[in-house]
Amino acid sequence: MRATPLSVREARLTRYTHSVDYVVHYEIPPNNRAEAEAAFVQLIENLANAGFATEVRHGDKTSLLVFLKIASDKLLHQQVYRYRLQDWLYGVRNSAPNKDLSQYFHDEPISDAERLRLAYLLITKPKNEGGAGITPRNGQWRYVKSVFPLHDHKFNRTWLKQWSTKYLLDASDINDIRDRFGEKVAFYFAFLQSYFQFLVFPAAFGLGAWLLLGQFSWVYGITNCLWTVVFFEYWKRKEVDLAVQWGVRGVSKIQLPRSEFQFEREAQDPVTGEIVRLYSPFKRLQKQLLQIPFAIACLVLLGSLIASCFSIEIFLAEVYDGPFKQYLVFLPTVLLTVFMPVLTTILTSLAETLTHLENYETQDAHQASFVQKIFVLNFITSYLPIFLTAFVYVPFGKVLVPYLDIFRVTAQRFVKGTKIETEDFEIDPHRLTQQMIYLTVTAQIVNFLLELVLPYVKRKVFKAVKDVQEDTNGNAAHAKDHPEEAAFLERVRNEAELDVYDVTIDYREMVVQFGYLSLFSVIWPLAGCSFLINNWVEARGDAMKIAISSQRPVPWRGDSIGPWLNSLGFLSWLGSITTSALVFLFRKDPYGPDGFPWNVRVWALLLSILFAEHLYLVVQIVVRSAIDKMDSPGLQKERAQRFALRKQLLAETLGEAESEKASGPSVVSGAEKITREVLEEEARQASIKGHGAPEEL
Amino acid sequence: MRATPLSVREARLTRYTHSVDYVVHYEIPPNNRAEAEAAFVQLIENLANAGFATEVRHGDKTSLLVFLKIASDKLLHQQVYRYRLQDWLYGVRNSAPNKDLSQYFHDEPISDAERLRLAYLLITKPKNEGGAGITPRNGQWRYVKSVFPLHDHKFNRTWLKQWSTKYLLDASDINDIRDRFGEKVAFYFAFLQSYFQFLVFPAAFGLGAWLLLGQFSWVYGITNCLWTVVFFEYWKRKEVDLAVQWGVRGVSKIQLPRSEFQFEREAQDPVTGEIVRLYSPFKRLQKQLLQIPFAIACLVLLGSLIASCFSIEIFLAEVYDGPFKQYLVFLPTVLLTVFMPVLTTILTSLAETLTHLENYETQDAHQASFVQKIFVLNFITSYLPIFLTAFVYVPFGKVLVPYLDIFRVTAQRFVKGTKIETEDFEIDPHRLTQQMIYLTVTAQIVNFLLELVLPYVKRKVFKAVKDVQEDTNGNAAHAKDHPEEAAFLERVRNEAELDVYDVTIDYREMVVQFGYLSLFSVIWPLAGCSFLINNWVEARGDAMKIAISSQRPVPWRGDSIGPWLNSLGFLSWLGSITTSALVFLFRKDPYGPDGFPWNVRVWALLLSILFAEHLYLVVQIVVRSAIDKMDSPGLQKERAQRFALRKQLLAETLGEAESEKASGPSVVSGAEKITREVLEEEARQASIKGHGAPEEL
Repeated sequence: MRATPLSVREARLTRYTHSVDYVVHYEIPPNNRAEAEAAFVQLIENLANAGFATEVRHGDKTSLLVFLKIASDKLLHQQVYRYRLQDWLYGVRNSAPNKDLSQYFHDEPISDAERLRLAYLLITKPKNEGGAGITPRNGQWRYVKSVFPLHDHKFNRTWLKQWSTKYLLDASDINDIRDRFGEKVAFYFAFLQSYFQFLVFPAAFGLGAWLLLGQFSWVYGITNCLWTVVFFEYWKRKEVDLAVQWGVRGVSKIQLPRSEFQFEREAQDPVTGEIVRLYSPFKRLQKQLLQIPFAIACLVLLGSLIASCFSIEIFLAEVYDGPFKQYLVFLPTVLLTVFMPVLTTILTSLAETLTHLENYETQDAHQASFVQKIFVLNFITSYLPIFLTAFVYVPFGKVLVPYLDIFRVTAQRFVKGTKIETEDFEIDPHRLTQQMIYLTVTAQIVNFLLELVLPYVKRKVFKAVKDVQEDTNGNAAHAKDHPEEAAFLERVRNEAELDVYDVTIDYREMVVQFGYLSLFSVIWPLAGCSFLINNWVEARGDAMKIAISSQRPVPWRGDSIGPWLNSLGFLSWLGSITTSALVFLFRKDPYGPDGFPWNVRVWALLLSILFAEHLYLVVQIVVRSAIDKMDSPGLQKERAQRFALRKQLLAETLGEAESEKASGPSVVSGAEKITREVLEEEARQASIKGHGAPEEL
Repeated sequence: MRATPLSVREARLTRYTHSVDYVVHYEIPPNNRAEAEAAFVQLIENLANAGFATEVRHGDKTSLLVFLKIASDKLLHQQVYRYRLQDWLYGVRNSAPNKDLSQYFHDEPISDAERLRLAYLLITKPKNEGGAGITPRNGQWRYVKSVFPLHDHKFNRTWLKQWSTKYLLDASDINDIRDRFGEKVAFYFAFLQSYFQFLVFPAAFGLGAWLLLGQFSWVYGITNCLWTVVFFEYWKRKEVDLAVQWGVRGVSKIQLPRSEFQFEREAQDPVTGEIVRLYSPFKRLQKQLLQIPFAIACLVLLGSLIASCFSIEIFLAEVYDGPFKQYLVFLPTVLLTVFMPVLTTILTSLAETLTHLENYETQDAHQASFVQKIFVLNFITSYLPIFLTAFVYVPFGKVLVPYLDIFRVTAQRFVKGTKIETEDFEIDPHRLTQQMIYLTVTAQIVNFLLELVLPYVKRKVFKAVKDVQEDTNGNAAHAKDHPEEAAFLERVRNEAELDVYDVTIDYREMVVQFGYLSLFSVIWPLAGCSFLINNWVEARGDAMKIAISSQRPVPWRGDSIGPWLNSLGFLSWLGSITTSALVFLFRKDPYGPDGFPWNVRVWALLLSILFAEHLYLVVQIVVRSAIDKMDSPGLQKERAQRFALRKQLLAETLGEAESEKASGPSVVSGAEKITREVLEEEARQASIKGHGAPEEL
């Protein structure tokens, strides 16, 4: 077999490089070799049964790479046809696919994303539905480390190059992403893009406000709130619009079942007679109620960590005046840096466990519930520090700080010799602004670097270590590669080691940022400028993350940004409350109520909040109804499609009705016979003469 | 012609009595006779052209009655088919009408309501769309006083008899109404019925609260708010459910054009190429903005009337002690009774004018906008008195009442001789409760009597006067009647004189009542009991109103209770605020803060309101998502229909795809050739042996 002529080999290789649909990264652990191998045989068999052509190569020392490709165009077309038909039946598409397939696929070609999505479904669907039934990292398939499509390097290069040289992205850029990475990823970039464009306003107005109005201006506050409302309502509309344009509106109704779903019992659906798998909603509700203790736990754990570090920081910075002060000031940062990731990791995995316990039928429901919990976590870690400064430290500082003496007493115990000095406490008037600047500028930059540079460095180091190990052992997989395939295989091995791209993380970052703008930017109106710059870079960074440091994502579809929309709405609404409270507390005196709560007229504060919130709600209704009245390309397209459909159907069906009408009642002739006299004198008679009673017709 | 054999006549008459679709009541005013008669000739001609068989009889002295019937079953079937097809195209029906008409109309028979609706459309549709183009009381047709269907007396009798003897209405009762009077009326009764059933809870709990907790109990307040939320969300769901069950979901999208709509310009729709008539939305917005001065005008006019009467009443009842006190106490009531209807009438016609100015394209939009304005009016007239008592009189009474001395000074001027005495002012602790009892019991009864008895009496009196007049003049129309038709014609003449049934008035009454319950029932928890009893009678009264004292309404369709839903939501939300404020102000001391506003801790009041409102919003979200998760008969039906459709379409279309699959890729055979050794030793070779690369397949 090794004697295959070179020309054939080369042909195959070239084909492969360009047409591999998926790569299965299969682990063969040395201590479970037999089991893993048996499952591998099963894997190849299942894939072949489902209609995949496969090729196997070595991965690293203990793994194999299986290259998959849908074997025939016919199978692919059949899959596309079937799923487009399903889309039509569920109302996602406006027209049924044409039965003349060759013409049809010419008119509506199959995008990369569609092919890859259907191939993935074919790999993961149960065997009785015609798939291969492979569920990575699960049960029988626990040695399947990952199933991923290969990057299209040529496209990626052009993509990154284009984006790094243009100021504004446009619809066609987003469409390219959609064709390659699916609607779910495209929705993120579309959101990022809309958000970026909208940010121009708060950036410009914020700059103006900062120069002319200063901090805590109610003019800026109201404008900013109005902006969040407009943006939120705009995006809600835009989302629908995009979904219609992309032909995915309502796609979330066709839900992907979760393979981990544990059903309690099977029952016949009373309506359809289908066997459906059920899980008691009451049991689920019980599990869902665990979210409340979870939220409380988050608040208590993270809250006490943040509050302690906060108190220590204040104590050290503004009260303490003893030895080692120059080193001790770093203590809270160190504590936060050490404990915050630990706590967050624990709580995130707790959130995951809880979401698994809730046992949803579908991927979407699972994801939405998880996102909800993650949002609670992020809300606390991101915003609590500012809440503490603005609503506890400033108004209650002078009352609470004396209690911080406990730190001095504690510290005194350790350093028995020297007496620890304390300064007189004064509220630091710049703390709030400094904190805001830190969170909206410094933290954004740090975050960006961590997100992009760290994985790169990590990868390089791991790679180097691995290479050294393999060189020492002398059994590197790539030594056996055929020279013509070596470069390609090397690339695939690298991609197999990359992280899976998770769009949730990127959404989270943007939503948290939107929160800073909505909730606190009245503290420091320049925040908008910082975010504008940051997001320009962010879009490019996220593109690089997908193209370079992640496996190519499976191109899932989606018809919205999903659960994040609610988070945006919540933050926008909460913004009306925090902004009014901040403006009220700090408006006259930018340093706030100076440590004594009795300086605050609580009723006036509450009245401001009440007023601002209701103003917000009214404005929201007005903006919503105004935006509802506007036309949009997506809705126009939908209308046009419906109209075309109606026209066609009417032509088909009403043809005969029309002709029927022509032969219908023709009672015109008698009408002229009615005369005035007749009407008056013998109304009844006239009617009998002039117009037939029913039986005469 | 008079010699028609009696048997034929009788046959025709009998037919008529049972099968007249519509009656046109046509006025021939003595001073415009020629013009009216010419138009009448045109009317008969148009109707005949549109496919109606007509008969003319005398109405009263100056009017004619035209009896209409769709001339052929074929025309009717064609109309039904056409509109059902339209419903299907707009997604209202799940299945297209079957082309085999005789079988189809057997399977899905035509209800009375459907026939009458289509007949009305045929009468009013423009001529170029195949109708007769009759627009009653408008332009050329200004002498067409009314176009109404005849009552089905047999059904009405059974209906009233049944309802007056059963305690609870059920779905079949509502369905009967739907078949006779259309979905719009049926929705009102369905709403009334659901509301009645839900009222059992606040009635029972209210009774318990009244006995055990007393007035202003926060337990009752919270429960009541919760109830309003549940009811509101339930009804929102129920509404959709009913619309699905009745096959009218989305019917509001197929909107009836308003014949009064004035278009600015005609333009080609960019999407469909159809000529559409446009009116600038900005101009409309300008007109819509007039709603704000309108609302302010209502508030100022009605508010000052109510406030003045209120002040006079307080002055007379609690301060004044001069002469004629026993007569003067009626002064405010007299003032209100005289001026309130005048003001309301003026403002209602102003609202009508404004709505006309807004110039909507469709009936629905017009009606919704009008209802909005009417709601503002009713809100002020119904709730302002209690607002004044609870939030002005009680907390600010002692501060404001001295200013009422102006009445004494004014009065003094008229009665110069005697000195007018004043008593010392004390807040009347029972005023709030008394007012609530008046509004929830007395006013309801008075209202009911006015609604039902007054029109009856009015009609009887008018009728008597008319009869006397005609007898005097000796030219009564019925004198000329043929004896076999006399009774029937007498009945029709009576029906022609009846009012047009307007469901808006009935909705308004129920929504206002819901408002009392939601906003103020914490003052007097027995309100629920009163409403429960009232609504039992109300349902029967409304049935009588339709059956006896109104013309049979044109059976319009509708898919919801329309704009009233928003009103309910608003009242439910406002309830959380007023209830918390009332409980806070009156909780400790049922007589409230005793006339001095400084007795009120404003910050605590605001905090209560803020807390209650947000609790309300959270509860609303929870209840909404809980109700969303429930299944309902309507949604089940929809699912079943969709499933059937999908099954059928899949069977039709996928048959070939399935067979295609069978002949698809069959790569199974090679799978067994993979062996472990091969895998390990020569993974690459194995794959070439075991599984075909694409070209080998």
